Amino acid sequence: MCGIVGVTSKSPVNQLIYDALLLLQHRGQDAAGIVTAVGTKFFMHKARGMVRDVFRTRNMRALPGTIGLGQVRYPTAGNAYSEEEAQPFYVNAPFGLVLVHNGNITNAHALKKELFGIDRRHLNTESDTEVLINILAHELELAARDLPLTAVEVFKAISAVHRRVKGSYAVVAMIAGYGLVAFRDPYGIRPLCIGSMPGADGTEWMIASESVALEGTGHHFERDIAPGEAVFIDMDGQLHAQQCAVAPSLNPCVFEFVYLARPDSVIDGISVYHARLNMGETLAQRVINTLPPNEIDVVIPIPESSRPSAMQLAQKLGKPYREGFVKNRYVGRTFIMPGQSVRKKSVRQKLNAIGMEFKGRNVLLVDDSIVRGTTSKEIVQMAREAGANKVYMASAAPPVRFPNVYGIDMPTNSELIAHGRTTEEIRQYIGCDALIYQDVDAMKRAVSALNPALAGFEASCFDGHYITGDVTAADFDAILTQRSSQPQDEETADRTRLALQNASE
Amino acid sequence: MCGIVGVTSKSPVNQLIYDALLLLQHRGQDAAGIVTAVGTKFFMHKARGMVRDVFRTRNMRALPGTIGLGQVRYPTAGNAYSEEEAQPFYVNAPFGLVLVHNGNITNAHALKKELFGIDRRHLNTESDTEVLINILAHELELAARDLPLTAVEVFKAISAVHRRVKGSYAVVAMIAGYGLVAFRDPYGIRPLCIGSMPGADGTEWMIASESVALEGTGHHFERDIAPGEAVFIDMDGQLHAQQCAVAPSLNPCVFEFVYLARPDSVIDGISVYHARLNMGETLAQRVINTLPPNEIDVVIPIPESSRPSAMQLAQKLGKPYREGFVKNRYVGRTFIMPGQSVRKKSVRQKLNAIGMEFKGRNVLLVDDSIVRGTTSKEIVQMAREAGANKVYMASAAPPVRFPNVYGIDMPTNSELIAHGRTTEEIRQYIGCDALIYQDVDAMKRAVSALNPALAGFEASCFDGHYITGDVTAADFDAILTQRSSQPQDEETADRTRLALQNASE
Amino acid sequence: MCGIVGVTSKSPVNQLIYDALLLLQHRGQDAAGIVTAVGTKFFMHKARGMVRDVFRTRNMRALPGTIGLGQVRYPTAGNAYSEEEAQPFYVNAPFGLVLVHNGNITNAHALKKELFGIDRRHLNTESDTEVLINILAHELELAARDLPLTAVEVFKAISAVHRRVKGSYAVVAMIAGYGLVAFRDPYGIRPLCIGSMPGADGTEWMIASESVALEGTGHHFERDIAPGEAVFIDMDGQLHAQQCAVAPSLNPCVFEFVYLARPDSVIDGISVYHARLNMGETLAQRVINTLPPNEIDVVIPIPESSRPSAMQLAQKLGKPYREGFVKNRYVGRTFIMPGQSVRKKSVRQKLNAIGMEFKGRNVLLVDDSIVRGTTSKEIVQMAREAGANKVYMASAAPPVRFPNVYGIDMPTNSELIAHGRTTEEIRQYIGCDALIYQDVDAMKRAVSALNPALAGFEASCFDGHYITGDVTAADFDAILTQRSSQPQDEETADRTRLALQNASE
Amino acid sequence: MCGIVGVTSKSPVNQLIYDALLLLQHRGQDAAGIVTAVGTKFFMHKARGMVRDVFRTRNMRALPGTIGLGQVRYPTAGNAYSEEEAQPFYVNAPFGLVLVHNGNITNAHALKKELFGIDRRHLNTESDTEVLINILAHELELAARDLPLTAVEVFKAISAVHRRVKGSYAVVAMIAGYGLVAFRDPYGIRPLCIGSMPGADGTEWMIASESVALEGTGHHFERDIAPGEAVFIDMDGQLHAQQCAVAPSLNPCVFEFVYLARPDSVIDGISVYHARLNMGETLAQRVINTLPPNEIDVVIPIPESSRPSAMQLAQKLGKPYREGFVKNRYVGRTFIMPGQSVRKKSVRQKLNAIGMEFKGRNVLLVDDSIVRGTTSKEIVQMAREAGANKVYMASAAPPVRFPNVYGIDMPTNSELIAHGRTTEEIRQYIGCDALIYQDVDAMKRAVSALNPALAGFEASCFDGHYITGDVTAADFDAILTQRSSQPQDEETADRTRLALQNASE
Repeated sequence: MCGIVGVTSKSPVNQLIYDALLLLQHRGQDAAGIVTAVGTKFFMHKARGMVRDVFRTRNMRALPGTIGLGQVRYPTAGNAYSEEEAQPFYVNAPFGLVLVHNGNITNAHALKKELFGIDRRHLNTESDTEVLINILAHELELAARDLPLTAVEVFKAISAVHRRVKGSYAVVAMIAGYGLVAFRDPYGIRPLCIGSMPGADGTEWMIASESVALEGTGHHFERDIAPGEAVFIDMDGQLHAQQCAVAPSLNPCVFEFVYLARPDSVIDGISVYHARLNMGETLAQRVINTLPPNEIDVVIPIPESSRPSAMQLAQKLGKPYREGFVKNRYVGRTFIMPGQSVRKKSVRQKLNAIGMEFKGRNVLLVDDSIVRGTTSKEIVQMAREAGANKVYMASAAPPVRFPNVYGIDMPTNSELIAHGRTTEEIRQYIGCDALIYQDVDAMKRAVSALNPALAGFEASCFDGHYITGDVTAADFDAILTQRSSQPQDEETADRTRLALQNASE
Repeated sequence: MCGIVGVTSKSPVNQLIYDALLLLQHRGQDAAGIVTAVGTKFFMHKARGMVRDVFRTRNMRALPGTIGLGQVRYPTAGNAYSEEEAQPFYVNAPFGLVLVHNGNITNAHALKKELFGIDRRHLNTESDTEVLINILAHELELAARDLPLTAVEVFKAISAVHRRVKGSYAVVAMIAGYGLVAFRDPYGIRPLCIGSMPGADGTEWMIASESVALEGTGHHFERDIAPGEAVFIDMDGQLHAQQCAVAPSLNPCVFEFVYLARPDSVIDGISVYHARLNMGETLAQRVINTLPPNEIDVVIPIPESSRPSAMQLAQKLGKPYREGFVKNRYVGRTFIMPGQSVRKKSVRQKLNAIGMEFKGRNVLLVDDSIVRGTTSKEIVQMAREAGANKVYMASAAPPVRFPNVYGIDMPTNSELIAHGRTTEEIRQYIGCDALIYQDVDAMKRAVSALNPALAGFEASCFDGHYITGDVTAADFDAILTQRSSQPQDEETADRTRLALQNASE
Repeated sequence: MCGIVGVTSKSPVNQLIYDALLLLQHRGQDAAGIVTAVGTKFFMHKARGMVRDVFRTRNMRALPGTIGLGQVRYPTAGNAYSEEEAQPFYVNAPFGLVLVHNGNITNAHALKKELFGIDRRHLNTESDTEVLINILAHELELAARDLPLTAVEVFKAISAVHRRVKGSYAVVAMIAGYGLVAFRDPYGIRPLCIGSMPGADGTEWMIASESVALEGTGHHFERDIAPGEAVFIDMDGQLHAQQCAVAPSLNPCVFEFVYLARPDSVIDGISVYHARLNMGETLAQRVINTLPPNEIDVVIPIPESSRPSAMQLAQKLGKPYREGFVKNRYVGRTFIMPGQSVRKKSVRQKLNAIGMEFKGRNVLLVDDSIVRGTTSKEIVQMAREAGANKVYMASAAPPVRFPNVYGIDMPTNSELIAHGRTTEEIRQYIGCDALIYQDVDAMKRAVSALNPALAGFEASCFDGHYITGDVTAADFDAILTQRSSQPQDEETADRTRLALQNASE
Repeated sequence: MCGIVGVTSKSPVNQLIYDALLLLQHRGQDAAGIVTAVGTKFFMHKARGMVRDVFRTRNMRALPGTIGLGQVRYPTAGNAYSEEEAQPFYVNAPFGLVLVHNGNITNAHALKKELFGIDRRHLNTESDTEVLINILAHELELAARDLPLTAVEVFKAISAVHRRVKGSYAVVAMIAGYGLVAFRDPYGIRPLCIGSMPGADGTEWMIASESVALEGTGHHFERDIAPGEAVFIDMDGQLHAQQCAVAPSLNPCVFEFVYLARPDSVIDGISVYHARLNMGETLAQRVINTLPPNEIDVVIPIPESSRPSAMQLAQKLGKPYREGFVKNRYVGRTFIMPGQSVRKKSVRQKLNAIGMEFKGRNVLLVDDSIVRGTTSKEIVQMAREAGANKVYMASAAPPVRFPNVYGIDMPTNSELIAHGRTTEEIRQYIGCDALIYQDVDAMKRAVSALNPALAGFEASCFDGHYITGDVTAADFDAILTQRSSQPQDEETADRTRLALQNASE
């Protein structure tokens, strides 16, 4: 995951982009970067770390200009599909481009071969963002070969990008001396929205991953960028927009609503908070169908993102909602000392139970989702040790059964507790007295009820349906078989990626 | 505020102290430090910043040994009473001492003069902790002048420290080659507790500001250190304890229960979480006496620490509890750019309202306390802009009317909204439709009900009674008058401090 | 000035490039950078500072591969012609190029406009090296448009570079996946030479600014690269060479022999040390013609580079050679403290006189050259204060009368003491009892005697003849007049540069 | 080796101390530190690295005040007698002291035991400087127990220091609020001198290791501090001086004249440069006695410090003096790369021969001294490869036969080429055609001729006579035998030191 932002203004934008990145920090804490421009000259600073650590006064002073963009990146080490290397990326021909990207390109490997062999463009990293910026650069070069660069050529190039690139991509880019460009893949998998603020000298435009970044910086939320749509804000602050995809259809990633986005964001017309309340409501119905209500004394959320669902569920059940777990907000490291054994880390360092809320009670724990199951298992154990009588577990999301290829950091099949297991098998593993999962369709209905205009969801982790059509759930099983019969070295990992992506053409 | 920890073990303690400091990080995010020892040799690392930023692998590797201590410090710049300079502190005569301290010495200025003029000890900072370590050093020198250093001499020295020093102090110290020492002022204003973990080679002891640090690192909570008590753990891991004060009496700082401590800590026999629930319960009674219940549609806490009180209040009122505000967890800076005006920062960058919980409703906002009133005023405004019909405000703590001299960062009289104002005047300033404060006695009863053994509370901010007897509320008014008639330069600040502390002898 | 190096080997090259840069450190102490490659992937590290400060173990470990290049850069801040920004530079299309450059492009401004307007390539700095790499990139793209890239296309592209670019340039570049390229401008102004070391797996090639870098790393000096010649070493270690200029002619910068190069280097067939001896020899003749020999008691060099000339001069005169000045090798800074006046810095902090060598004697001081005259003036004063009877000054180089546009950091006309002044006027300013300058033709003869194949020298500072033909001494006077009648702000500086460079087309 | 400096002024001293440390940088490049004081408050900055790297603007700004001291330290890792840990050192009782020290305490181990066991002072490092500051602190405490601190008490304390401490020590210290103290051991082994500069508000005093630091900062050289003498400059700028040793006698370390000090310094009345000329003169006589003059074509110094001796020698022989070797001034590191073999470093990276000065000639190489012999061997080989016909070697110092215990970094007996070998055996090892050593007595006469007041020299490396009387050459043989029969672990190293130092009581 990443959070991205772009701004054009009449006054300096460095602090504004910084503030917006802080509001998007939950989307990525691994690295951060900002580029600004004065005339055709770019100024960049990027580094690993959180926003407040990456940008010092001297860095901020070296980011002048009234136009710019920024990114925060999620840590995704060791994940074959992950977004690598620090953003923004820069290429100098044609025009001079910088670009930030949230998502994952599924045919990156094939595109790389084209770029290298045919377009003679050099890629120096494994990042699919570097692929994307070079594809855009190449298409801009073609579109504007003998023409001046205007919105027409920009949109022509982005149309070509849509034709060549597969996967998820919400993008903000700058063309040196020309303006700010933003676009979203034809399925609208990753979010992107526009806000504005009127000023004496003209309108300030901000484009960001989530509406909180707009509102938290005082901008008026204008609208979401449509799937396949491109937006170009020229140096005069004029906004041009055009649909650049052939058959766009809005299928946002359902995980944004489950746990990724901030609850106070509104994405594609849906309040994330409201979506979570609705998921709590439908989950309550499943609980009622499974457990006699008088078996439950108290509803306890597992912090943080499950709280709205749990609260609504508790209200629906008519049971007290109590925050029995305290989350440790300050995360540290385990250091490897020479000749010293490592103390086993556990969920206990992240969570602590308040005894009086568990002692002698039947507790219904609510989590937003269950991925590997190991954390759930430890939490159930903690609840028992805190004196709980019976421990029930409810998940606001359905079973996570398949990997994600659209930019969410998710383990492989074999590590997903729900992959190939029944609910009863999972319950036994976790060790709770009952386990209640949200239903896939119920979840989709609960969320889409808030915006009937939605075509559907990118919900492949739950339903195995990969919306871009170039990947299938069967591929992963094949890969899994292949993997387990081969030495898992780096080369293999690469071949694995190759296999998958060749399958997509 | 600070968080402190000390450990004696049979295995390396660097990671353990690091983990404990992370669990105490909420008590101070400005600086962090660790000292360990091998034989008589100390190893220290301290710096400004949060724990995870201050300690890197190379620093951790340079902290060997099975005994050590650490501290996290609160930012207190510009506060005349504040704890300054990075801890731990070190003096090399006698024996070699290192020390960490949570609290504030109220007669530091007079002690400094004694140390400089009579004891000929050099103080190189403005820190009262440097005063404290030198007083301890001097008394250890006297107590063990012609004797070997044993628990007897250590306790004799600490008894002398209690006689000379006034104010609040929870302390952990190491004597090179002898062991770990911990003690608490005779009123027990700041918390300190002991935990243990059995091991094959002997018991591992941990002493920490809060019980979460013990439990989060797998230690069994043994007990609180009593007011005036000293504990000495020698190099064999033997724990010695003795009351070293003449008339100790347990009067913990009530602010620990209001908002300082983690809810999952138990301090002086009282669950902080339970104390907050009780405060919500008594506050509910005040609300009922003030407002017709049907005037309230929903109870909304102002995150974070007011949640338990608000939850209990809502339950007592029979009204829905809703988390209508989302807190921005990632805090950044406002950079001063040459020739650039600074964007006004507001509560909006820290909090965001979820519209659907406010629209058309009468909301009762609950905060843990109201200090300057400026934040409350902005929050009320935000609630109205989010569409609230009526906005009521309730404070789980009584009006804050007086400064704090025991180590809590609190503004001066003139900045306290409740200093010299009626509740109606405050309500008008804040702009809410009703304002309900907790009652001082009700608060004390609500918390002390959980441990009848308590003598009382250090609650000077609320009741103007300074328990160490060397400061009075009248002093502050005198200072205030003096201040406003003088240029507020550094020298003045110093003279102010002088005046106060001279008054205390 | 800069020092550059490139290596292709069968084993890792990071340490080798590092060692070579140390041997070239005298050519630039402001910044340093290395790029290596594995396959088509580049690894780069560059920063301001000296080589030993810029490269730490972690940086070196991140520079894998058996091919690479590096650079050290001279500080040239505030000089309109200076080489700016850290090298190496990188462009990703076509192929992926990195490049280091020693010299200065005199038509950079005009090329920039072509690149931006016609080639649509983005330049993000003021560096002429960025211009050069983009010209090379563009010409490579054209040369290999529909062809595979071989030595033929590489040489075709470099021929085009020679046609478009004016000024001085010794260049080493890498083409990702293809090999190492090196070339020198058609006048051979800046030096570049090739060395080799046989190995079990094949020959290791090193290309460097000076022969000391080859020999100090154990390489056999092969030959200088000819003016206009290009060398391409492919991935198999095969060296291809071709003359790419139309009418090349060897005119090395005479300043390399005067003071830039290390005495133990051999440049274009001439031992720098020997050249300096010869200059001392011819200077001796001028001294004899000016002063009665018995008027001179001792010959004292002004360290460092004048020592060989002074030694030979002393021998020729039959006078003792004595090192009466000690140079302070450790240079520091003068810090600006708020509200504190700055102690005046003087030559005394760089040089110290040994009294016994001056007291009561007639001394002949020998310097390599006299630029501003301010240092000479102070040194004469020091000699007098040390007790010298008479103080004569001799300069191994002729009067410096004109600015340099080929990459040597030299002040403008108005700051050159010899610009428009007679020798007697200069003598009066410096305050010595006699002043003897080398003669321009004598200097040229003294050096060229060591290699009759030389066409001539780039000696514009002395003779006002700018060999590339696009700049004339008259231009500088025009600029100077213009400058003095205009506010000297940044914009003016830019216009100045523009004027000069437009004049060159 | 170290360089130390102290200043009392009427204006800020930070830049002044910085400039002085630069002038002393040749005495130590491993670490640097400065302490200044305002009133009784000390400000310190120290770190590893050279002066220009250690002090940045922010560090300099944090060093206010008109009194202060500083130090540069030589790298002495792995030498049992070496000065460890960064200086200045600080102790806070009594008064507050900071101290810098050049030299080595030979009874440090015994003193440590006294400090720990009797004085109960904690030592946290292996540094003998920490021992020294604690001895001084303890004696100041005793001397001024019931008295005000004046020059009388300071001199009483230093007299006691002289009685307790053995070895070499030139010291500058500050007593917070009282003034600057400087003293030199009773044999005056390490240098220390005083300079002054008159000012409108009073005299500025500077105390430094060498006279160049005084003169290079514009101070008038007053005099050397006498052996055993102490100097105290009080807060009014009044200088008090007193002899504090019982039987002082001036025996400066002869190595200062051989190669340590800068040639332009005057130490204990002797010009270092003149001393080197004299050594060249007497060495010439030895050469004449050994070799037929017509066998020598040219005299070539091995840079840097042998140049004056070689120049004088050449003149005496009537042979040309030629600088045939060029020293590489920029020293780097050899990085250890995982799985990569290390390129062998050689003298060739530090020195380069200029072929034309060697080819076909009989060369007489002159070095200041020969320690291990390995470098000499390589240099002879380089001369031969450069084409020399015959290669003779002359050493301006006599054979180095014994270790140094007074602060000079010198290898152990077994590594000294001259330990137990005849000149012929050494010549064979080095591989030269003739080897001429200075004679011990001739050297002493040559230097002492310049100041007849000298009692003698600390010349133990050459004559085996350890002037402080607590160490004998025989001890080292005993240790050597012991060492070779024992595992050379850290504990052994410690025991070795113990044995030596116990022998001294």
